[in-house]
Amino acid sequence: MSKLKRNERIGAIVKILCDSPNKVYTLNYFTELFDSAKSTISEDLVIVKKIMEELSLGKVVTIAGAAGGAKYVPAMGKTEKITLIEKICEDMRKPERVMPGKFLYMADVLYNPTYTKGIGDIFAERYSDDDKKVDYVLTVETKGIPIAMMTARGLNVPLVIARHENKVTEGPKLSINYISGSTGNLQTMYISKNAIKKGSNILIVDDFMKAGGSAKGMTQLVSELECKVAGICVLFDTITPSQKLVERYISLIRYEGIDTEERIMVYPNFENLE
Amino acid sequence: MSKLKRNERIGAIVKILCDSPNKVYTLNYFTELFDSAKSTISEDLVIVKKIMEELSLGKVVTIAGAAGGAKYVPAMGKTEKITLIEKICEDMRKPERVMPGKFLYMADVLYNPTYTKGIGDIFAERYSDDDKKVDYVLTVETKGIPIAMMTARGLNVPLVIARHENKVTEGPKLSINYISGSTGNLQTMYISKNAIKKGSNILIVDDFMKAGGSAKGMTQLVSELECKVAGICVLFDTITPSQKLVERYISLIRYEGIDTEERIMVYPNFENLE
Repeated sequence: MSKLKRNERIGAIVKILCDSPNKVYTLNYFTELFDSAKSTISEDLVIVKKIMEELSLGKVVTIAGAAGGAKYVPAMGKTEKITLIEKICEDMRKPERVMPGKFLYMADVLYNPTYTKGIGDIFAERYSDDDKKVDYVLTVETKGIPIAMMTARGLNVPLVIARHENKVTEGPKLSINYISGSTGNLQTMYISKNAIKKGSNILIVDDFMKAGGSAKGMTQLVSELECKVAGICVLFDTITPSQKLVERYISLIRYEGIDTEERIMVYPNFENLE
Repeated sequence: MSKLKRNERIGAIVKILCDSPNKVYTLNYFTELFDSAKSTISEDLVIVKKIMEELSLGKVVTIAGAAGGAKYVPAMGKTEKITLIEKICEDMRKPERVMPGKFLYMADVLYNPTYTKGIGDIFAERYSDDDKKVDYVLTVETKGIPIAMMTARGLNVPLVIARHENKVTEGPKLSINYISGSTGNLQTMYISKNAIKKGSNILIVDDFMKAGGSAKGMTQLVSELECKVAGICVLFDTITPSQKLVERYISLIRYEGIDTEERIMVYPNFENLE
């Protein structure tokens, strides 16, 4: 490969950093890849940082010292976040989503690759600070998995999925019983015993919170594992019950039900889109 | 925003294209964003294409004509693919993965954000050609979801997840019964009736194929939906039974079992890593 020009190096640096959010690449990695001096790469990184910030494309953080280098952290502008969430709300308001029993069909929204990427980036940005260090993202099957996966990817940490059944193929489990806040039914959650190291910080991610039973169940699982909850993030929450089973969580969209004219009432939670 | 320099525009173009694989951005989109002439953006795109190819970072395809523009298509070099798959195999060979009953614990591998991103890109690359146009990615819960999600993201198409239970919250379903090829048990798969449009091309993605029961079940579901199977992609397959219930599929890693010295025998399927 012939020696690259500055604009070529910059394109390559952007691709490499953004492909692996929250992964630190050393200056040496780039000096070897491009056969360039450290000072050259440092100047490239200054330009990369500037573009990212000016165009609200994310944040590039440079880390000083021997183990230093640079990493990309998902960071959307406020306008971009609101635009995305408004778009999801608009999609959610389609009348054909109302199912018998007044349930809302929303699987296509939860599995949409563009939406899930954006939602994962919003959650990951919020927990990318080093002092809130997250070690794992935890969800419970099934519908929250895509969002949780994208959050884990944004944070560059493993995803752990709690199951509703005890699968023999996955070895010894820890299980807890919990009451579903919305149906009042007793449910069980299983997690592989060795999936999470003691003393870790766990970010809980789920698609929907009504009473908060699943989230509460996951916090119990976290404390059984002798770990700490770093935070709870859900895409949707409901206006009732206003008192949830967990105290603190972040929701991006509030679902207020279906009104007398059959309109689906969903609104962005602006305070969580700063 | 002051007018950007070429190297700044290139950084921004790379970020925007790679953030949304297989999404076409028009030249106008960039000329407006950067307040630059079409000829300038065309030259930028030539440079972006060149870097991507030289460094095996992916492919940028330019589309001519009125609706023309550019899109990023995941494309790893053969070396990068083999490196990734060898790394996964090495990880899979850890002796502590063997569970009672000689099952292998592999959830952490299937939920690892770096692995799933790479695997999704490999599958998406294979099906990114316009003549094999994929409309949806289909998987069945649970362990294949992260890989399937990343594949859907690479292809920029919706993900659809078949469930093992009939959830009332998801409206009317289509269901099929199928025999699990490995256990011989009768199982059921449910899919929301409106999740997939008639006449679509469906890419089936799953984590593991032993006899091929799940994959066969999904192909039945696809034909019930009056759709066509575009392909079947799995991360792992087994050496026995050699005769699977589906005829054609792609697997990236072959699992040959545990040998008499308790070694886990997993190997890259090199023919699928071209």
